[in-house]
Amino acid sequence: MKGNLLYAQSGGVTAVINATAAAVIETARKHRGRIEKVLAARNGIIGALREELVDTYAEDWRSLKGLRHTPGGAFGSCRFKLKSLEADRAHYERLIEVCRAHDVRWLLYNGGNDSADTSLKISQVAEQLDYELGVIGVPKTIDNDLAVTDNCPGFGSVAKYVAVSTLEASFDVAAMAESSTKVFVLEVMGRHAGWIAAAAGLAGRGHHEPPHLILFPEKQFDEADFLARVRETVETVGWCTVVVSEGVRRPDGRFLAESGTVDAFGHSQLGGAGAAVAGLVKDELGLKVHFAVSDYLQRSARHIASATDYYHAWAVGEAAVKYALEGRSGVMPVIKRRANRPYRWEIAEAPLSLVANHEKTVPPDYFREDGYGISSKARRYLEPLIQGEAYPEYRDGLPHYVKLRNRLVRKRLGEYDV
Amino acid sequence: MKGNLLYAQSGGVTAVINATAAAVIETARKHRGRIEKVLAARNGIIGALREELVDTYAEDWRSLKGLRHTPGGAFGSCRFKLKSLEADRAHYERLIEVCRAHDVRWLLYNGGNDSADTSLKISQVAEQLDYELGVIGVPKTIDNDLAVTDNCPGFGSVAKYVAVSTLEASFDVAAMAESSTKVFVLEVMGRHAGWIAAAAGLAGRGHHEPPHLILFPEKQFDEADFLARVRETVETVGWCTVVVSEGVRRPDGRFLAESGTVDAFGHSQLGGAGAAVAGLVKDELGLKVHFAVSDYLQRSARHIASATDYYHAWAVGEAAVKYALEGRSGVMPVIKRRANRPYRWEIAEAPLSLVANHEKTVPPDYFREDGYGISSKARRYLEPLIQGEAYPEYRDGLPHYVKLRNRLVRKRLGEYDV
Repeated sequence: MKGNLLYAQSGGVTAVINATAAAVIETARKHRGRIEKVLAARNGIIGALREELVDTYAEDWRSLKGLRHTPGGAFGSCRFKLKSLEADRAHYERLIEVCRAHDVRWLLYNGGNDSADTSLKISQVAEQLDYELGVIGVPKTIDNDLAVTDNCPGFGSVAKYVAVSTLEASFDVAAMAESSTKVFVLEVMGRHAGWIAAAAGLAGRGHHEPPHLILFPEKQFDEADFLARVRETVETVGWCTVVVSEGVRRPDGRFLAESGTVDAFGHSQLGGAGAAVAGLVKDELGLKVHFAVSDYLQRSARHIASATDYYHAWAVGEAAVKYALEGRSGVMPVIKRRANRPYRWEIAEAPLSLVANHEKTVPPDYFREDGYGISSKARRYLEPLIQGEAYPEYRDGLPHYVKLRNRLVRKRLGEYDV
Repeated sequence: MKGNLLYAQSGGVTAVINATAAAVIETARKHRGRIEKVLAARNGIIGALREELVDTYAEDWRSLKGLRHTPGGAFGSCRFKLKSLEADRAHYERLIEVCRAHDVRWLLYNGGNDSADTSLKISQVAEQLDYELGVIGVPKTIDNDLAVTDNCPGFGSVAKYVAVSTLEASFDVAAMAESSTKVFVLEVMGRHAGWIAAAAGLAGRGHHEPPHLILFPEKQFDEADFLARVRETVETVGWCTVVVSEGVRRPDGRFLAESGTVDAFGHSQLGGAGAAVAGLVKDELGLKVHFAVSDYLQRSARHIASATDYYHAWAVGEAAVKYALEGRSGVMPVIKRRANRPYRWEIAEAPLSLVANHEKTVPPDYFREDGYGISSKARRYLEPLIQGEAYPEYRDGLPHYVKLRNRLVRKRLGEYDV
């Protein structure tokens, strides 16, 4: 089999998804006898449907080298979920049509749960339409909620960012607490799974080290109990660091963050779990409180990327090309852990059907007994993932990140509305 | 003159104030013939009043070495402003009494405007009470609003953090914009002066690079004009990054952040300039928006500290000890810029009277013509301050920050309520 390889990014981007992209491109280039070109879909599957395909070989080698250390998604990503084969039949068939028109024989789809599902369906449609196409899912998500794989590329770096930030801000509040701020709240991502919040737990050990209290989406929020613990921490430690996952819910099922209101000017007062928790602490305990919302900063913080995560991201990209050339389809390279300390891992092949649509939340024995922290088991799991600093190169005080030219190849099909 | 030296930290802490502390301690140790001990006030001036004095020579050398790279304020800081000599006479006299009891002959006060003022008053009271005391102010503030000095230790690091974060988050939103988030808002500190917001401008050049729009406290917020520019940026660039200073005000003088309301549970919905701007964009333009509030993260981010800032912080600590030994009082070592590129600077002596109670805001010619960005003059000023990466040492994936023992020396006076 000879032809082109199409790579696409999907969903929220990460600090290291471009490392995966770089690995795909660089590995494919070593097999130019079989892989003629690596095309990249502009803005993920949307670009594939619109036939907006970037010719990655038109980039100069310096840019491709810089890609390894550049955050974001270099070709654009998307939030666009293909529905069932029945509901979105036209889209699936269009994808095959685009692949056929550009002699795409391998599709590498770099994303999370939804993307694994989409990849699986595309491979089925290709088979039905008798078009030979190897479809490989490539794992990526800061949420760390993919099944089968030990961890997800992108997570280790956000974990490192969150642990480092929690540690640093805690040094700050500790210095201010005597006469000023007594409680610091950090809001982190994670709508359904508390992996990122759990990573903050690496900043300290035990009840008396920050973060003193972590609020997980897996645990129901008990306002009175939480406030009592904040008060107790401030009384014993002198101050308190709280990490709250955006996905924490009240007993009635509503997100803490859903308490958005309208301000004096009639505008939406965009809330968030961090603001909600800080408001509670201020009102109910009368303590001076500060809160930070790390939002996109946490997942784009390439400057503090975990070297382990970077190696993972590279390895899944490299393995995906290898699987493609071996004629595999409907599979995903996943990370298998061999040992914790020193951390040893390898890449293994997993069927996409086991990955698609599953969601791995934090298991019960990863929580501290009181539910407001992480257990030693969680620590053993998380610690290896933040090891090492994969610093980018700097120029004039700033990381030297690259923007690709993203030159599109000439279209061969008619317009298609997405 | 022989005796002890007392060092105190004041106001909001920074990523590098402990580098100044380390410089003071290490420089003083080279002069043990004259400086017997370096004492440090626990929680700033509050500890000095309470006679809570840390014996820094009781720390082991490893901790003192680690202090150079540890964020926060190692001895505790405070928000406690001494009022006029008349109003707070008792406090000033108590300070002299504490110095006398502990043979403190030099007081080094590490802070901002208020601290310069306090230092000046203490030196006056000492003279009135005929107690020989050299009082040296040592500059520190992330706000960069001190007069006389070219820039303030602590600012360069927050500037670097904010520029890097703006750059990185912009790569993220650029990748998501086609089908998801189109506007990203970053809220930064700076209630009266827009220096930190200005530093974000280093992330890009011109109207079409992020941050596309910066909202400064020096400029009145014009809602309609701002929204028109966001819309235009999204239309031409595809997305838009906004940086907003917490101190931005509406034409009626109210802070944007003052629009705090009460949520469905009756709790304070803590607002912020970032949330307010994001709410506006969502309501008025109907665009998907994300916002981050960097809060304490920005000023404690030692992991991405500017090497230039670190050297400044060290140099002012070293010079303060030198001035003390030379018998100076009522002065502050300040940074004098000699050249921009390559950046050359030196330490000079300035009378505290010129520093105290002045506030240096961003000058008019530092703004881009449209008022939503920085001029090339501002860039020439800011760029040198973020040069170099003063990385801390890492252990097990986290920066190796130190906690001091902070052993207090035995009290010699009666209790004193603060």
